[in-house]
Order: sequence, then structure tokens, then C-alpha cells
Amino acid sequence: MTEIAKLGEFGLICHLTEHLQPRQPGTVKGVGDDAAVLDYKEKAVLVTTDLLLEGIHFDLTYVPLKHLGYKSAIVNFSDIYAMNGQPKQITVSLGVSKRFSVEDLDAFYEGLELACEIYGVDIVGGDTSSSLTGLCISVTCIGEAEKDQIVYRNTAKNTDLICVSGDLGAAYMGLQLLEREKTVFSGEKNFAPDFAGKEYLLERQLKPEARKDVVRMLAENQILPTSMIDISDGLSSDILHICQQSKVGCRIYEERLPIDYQTAMMTEQFNMNVATVALNGGEDYELLFTVPLSEHDKIVALDGIKIIGYIDEAATGCRLIARDGTEIPLTAQGWNSILSEET
Amino acid sequence: MTEIAKLGEFGLICHLTEHLQPRQPGTVKGVGDDAAVLDYKEKAVLVTTDLLLEGIHFDLTYVPLKHLGYKSAIVNFSDIYAMNGQPKQITVSLGVSKRFSVEDLDAFYEGLELACEIYGVDIVGGDTSSSLTGLCISVTCIGEAEKDQIVYRNTAKNTDLICVSGDLGAAYMGLQLLEREKTVFSGEKNFAPDFAGKEYLLERQLKPEARKDVVRMLAENQILPTSMIDISDGLSSDILHICQQSKVGCRIYEERLPIDYQTAMMTEQFNMNVATVALNGGEDYELLFTVPLSEHDKIVALDGIKIIGYIDEAATGCRLIARDGTEIPLTAQGWNSILSEET
Repeated sequence: MTEIAKLGEFGLICHLTEHLQPRQPGTVKGVGDDAAVLDYKEKAVLVTTDLLLEGIHFDLTYVPLKHLGYKSAIVNFSDIYAMNGQPKQITVSLGVSKRFSVEDLDAFYEGLELACEIYGVDIVGGDTSSSLTGLCISVTCIGEAEKDQIVYRNTAKNTDLICVSGDLGAAYMGLQLLEREKTVFSGEKNFAPDFAGKEYLLERQLKPEARKDVVRMLAENQILPTSMIDISDGLSSDILHICQQSKVGCRIYEERLPIDYQTAMMTEQFNMNVATVALNGGEDYELLFTVPLSEHDKIVALDGIKIIGYIDEAATGCRLIARDGTEIPLTAQGWNSILSEET
Repeated sequence: MTEIAKLGEFGLICHLTEHLQPRQPGTVKGVGDDAAVLDYKEKAVLVTTDLLLEGIHFDLTYVPLKHLGYKSAIVNFSDIYAMNGQPKQITVSLGVSKRFSVEDLDAFYEGLELACEIYGVDIVGGDTSSSLTGLCISVTCIGEAEKDQIVYRNTAKNTDLICVSGDLGAAYMGLQLLEREKTVFSGEKNFAPDFAGKEYLLERQLKPEARKDVVRMLAENQILPTSMIDISDGLSSDILHICQQSKVGCRIYEERLPIDYQTAMMTEQFNMNVATVALNGGEDYELLFTVPLSEHDKIVALDGIKIIGYIDEAATGCRLIARDGTEIPLTAQGWNSILSEET
């Protein structure tokens, strides 16, 4: 194990970044100057940022640093895809306490670089600093989009179909599983619980993917969504963002929620309501979007996309139609619960 | 005092950002979607980021939150000016513990917005999260530059003149002063030390400015530096960055170092060497740049710019010429000291 102090700030930054080679033609200058220099030609520039703090957003008891690096990049890429754009560059700032070694940061960067390689993104800058407490990660992603192809949250229209990619709730159940095993094995030295048959849930929590493929598939099929958002806080919160900003209402059908077999099994084991998990789970990084009714047949023909409801007039509110036909108002959960726990 | 938990995540973000109105024509969409949308037309896009952590980069015992907001923006603007660019947008991520109130964050944003107003920059996004410990601030700045006017660190040439704006060491002495008073007044309730005659030092530490005016002045006088960096780590560290990346050496004259009267007085009181302070102090946010020898007369005519030395061949190393003519090798201090203190 190599102590970070041995390298010092400049040595550490050099160690972590000197081998990085820009792949994007738009990256004129990456790491190593006061700022990165990017060429976006006539395209629009998209910028998004996420802060991940130890103890709030991740628990290093069960999250390997390589996975954390991967996920730190993915959550930002996901925001760029949700604008119908392509991520091109990221900057990465780390605050690290002396508890971490150079090898720890190497593992983090390994995951980060793997994500960047797979998604075609350059690491162009950042900041590394000591921290008095835990690990602090700030990633900013810059991406591009054709100016007339950007999809916002505030442009959903009455009668639009509401669509979602993939399935919901698995990342949340993966987290529940990890938290449970952490408690069960608390104090034991060799923490090696049996996760057989639950691999998908763990993967969704520990190594999520951003839906680059969905953005490409929509483009290939000449479908331009009327609005789009990525599901990070949970379907409920995120459809409410679209509805509030678009000044519309919505109807979501419980029976149409896409749920994986492992998610369903796990909610049963945990005695939880599977629809609640799918609605409020969060961290799925699936795309939630609306399309005009006229695109119905095209959407139905797409693999892995499900129509889960429709946009309605604002006055009718935002509601879930349960399996028995009763209507339940959708409410935003998400991050509030964390804050109130803390207080 | 309003507890943050009362507003919740979405409520807090809304409270802090709903009144923000983009000023820059290039800001197509600011806060409120998955990513900000920017239009840079044919210009190059510059990106820089800085992480500021409580206890490492600032001490809230004597740094008011409004000043901290101001400084968080300025340090990033400074990096963009150091590329010969113009800052246009920032994103701001905050991790806040329950120790902070909504009013605290309002004060932080007040300073942030003031800096943005003065420098013509839009706040276009960010992330607000709870933190288990202190305050964590991550700012990313996006700026523009004409593609053929960008000034890098790695392009200084042999015989170039080395120039610096303003004066050096004052921010560092301001910090020493605040640290001393903190110790003296430790435990006392009404912390109101007498700073008469030292206002400049405090201002340089607590409310630094970025040298937008210097970048403009150079452009107006048709001077394009061959290399440039902003002095954040200290003159020594920063000239070494230029020399190492440009593969050149340098000579800096001690007697040419620009030092304010208050800085000189204060170093005497503290029994410190004023040249050491000017060389290693850091946080001055002045511009350090090189120009061809042929620009000598133009530079001399500029107000507030001082020629402090010249670029030499790499083989001759990087040296300070002391007042008595002896040559002392320049060494990078800066942040390393913090890391070793911590360990």
C-alpha cells in the first residue's frame, strides 16, 4: 500500500492522469492546464454534474472502489443521454482522507476509465485534494447534441404516451440486499454472503449502465421524444418532474410497470410491495420519455421499451391506476427521506 | 433559522435556484433539466473545476459564507482567464451537513451570485446533497475562447519575458493574520479582532478577484502571451508548471517581485522572509505569463504588470536570483505541506 502523502498533490494527479489519452476529436486539450479545451463546432454543449459523498451516496463496506468509479461516470452519462445527447468529456474531483491509499485511487480510476472507454468519453480534468473525513467525488460531464434534437423535461403534451426502458426497482432491491447482508455479517471478518440467483439486483446497484443504446435506437427509428428524463430518484419523482415542468397530468398503470423476475422475488422475500419499489426505488438509470400518440406502433415494435401510461390534462393530476382500477395520487419520495433520517 | 430538512432536496434546490435568470446569450437552458444546454457557436469550450472542502480549503471560524461563495466562483473564473478565455457558466454542487441552515446557504449563494453578476457568468446547474460532516463545495466553470487565442502552459519559449500582474503574498499573509487571531481569541464569544491597516491582506484572502481586466488589457494592446497560468499554488510552483511543461528553464529576480506595503509590514511582524512569502504564498489569483522579448516596450507601458525575469534554456534550470546575486533553485511547495501535515 502506498500512502498518498508519498506522492504529494502534483505527484498524485500525475500518477492518476498522465496515461490518459483523449479519444474524442473534440478534445483539443485534456488534463494538464488551467482548463480543458474542447471543440464543439456547431453542436450544442450539454453540462451536468453530480456529487457523491461517502456515507450518503455510497457505503464502502460493500461497494468496491472500481465499481464506484464506474458508477460515478455512468450516473453523469445518463443525464446527458436523457437530453438526447452524447457524453464526450468528464472532469473528476476527489477529496480523499488518509485512510485511502494510492492503490485505492487506482482502483477508482480503473472503473472510471473503463466506463469512459465503453461510452467513448475522455477524462479531461479535475482536482485532487485531501479531505478530513470520507471520500468525496464530484464528476461533471460535458456532452453534445444537435441543436434541434435536444429533448427537455418541460415539453410533454396532453395525450402523449409515457414510455420507459428496461425494468424498475432492481437497483433498489440490490441495495436492500447489500444492506441486509451488511447487518447480518456485521463484525465478521470474511464478509462473503451468498448472492446466488440475485446477481442481476447486485449488478443494477453496483454496476449500472446508462442507456446509450436506447438513445441510438430511438434515433434509428426516427422517434424524437417530446420529453425525457433519466430515472435516478424513482419513477414517481421523475414523472412528476416532467408533469410539473410541462404543466400536464398523467396516468400510470400499475400492471404495465416493467419488473424483473429477481426484483419480484426479492420484494416478496422482504415483504415489500413490488409496485412501491418500482415507483420509488431510484438509481435505475433507465430512460423515461413521452412520445406523440401517433408513434404508438413504432414504439410497440421496439425491444425493451414499455408504454406505461399517458399524459393527461394538468387538472386531472398525476395518478397511478392500480390493478383493481383504483386511482392513487403519485408522490415524490426520493432523497427527502435521507435528509429527514439525518436530522 | 430554517432547517434544510424542512425544504427537502427538491425544495432546497428550487429555493436556491428558481430566481436565477441566465444573462449570457449562450445559455440556452440553465438550471432545471438533466443537463444545462449551452451554445458556443464556433468558439472553443473551456472547462475547469475546483473542489473546496471544509477544514482543508477554508475555516468557517473566520470565513463568512458569503465570502466563501464569492471565492468559490472566483477561483474558477481565474482558471478560465489563465487560458485567455472568458468564463460564461458555472455549475455548483454542495454537500451540507445538518449544522447548516437555509439562511447559511442563502448567504453562500448571495456571494456566488454577486461574483457571477460582476463577471457576467450564469449559474446553470448543480447538485445539493446532505453530507455527514462538513461543507463540501464543487464548482465547475465553462468558458469560451477564440480558437486561435488560447494560451497554454506548455508554450513558453527561450528568451521570453516572465510577467506577473498585481502583487504577491498578500493572500497568504491575510491567512496568517486570521489564523493568529483565531488562536488569540480562541474560546472568546465575540470574536472581533482589530484589523485596522491590514484590510488589504484580509481582502486578498477573503474576497479575491480574478484578473479579467488583465486579459482585456492584453487584448486591447494586441499582446498574446506565449504561455499563461494563474497563481493559485504560489509563484514558485506555478512558474515550475510552465517551465516543466514548456521544457525550458527560468530566472526570476528577487528584487523584481511585486509586493504590497501591507504584505511587507506583516512579514516583518511575523518575522518571515518576504520573498519566501511572495514565492510560495499562493491564492493570489494573479496572472503569470510569458511574452516574446519583442513585446518588452508594450509590457513596460502597462499599468500593474511587472517583468520579473526571463525564460532560459532547460539545461540551466529554474532559479531565483537573490538581491546579492546568488542563485537559488526554485522548488514547488504548495499543497504537499497540507498532505504531510495530515498524515
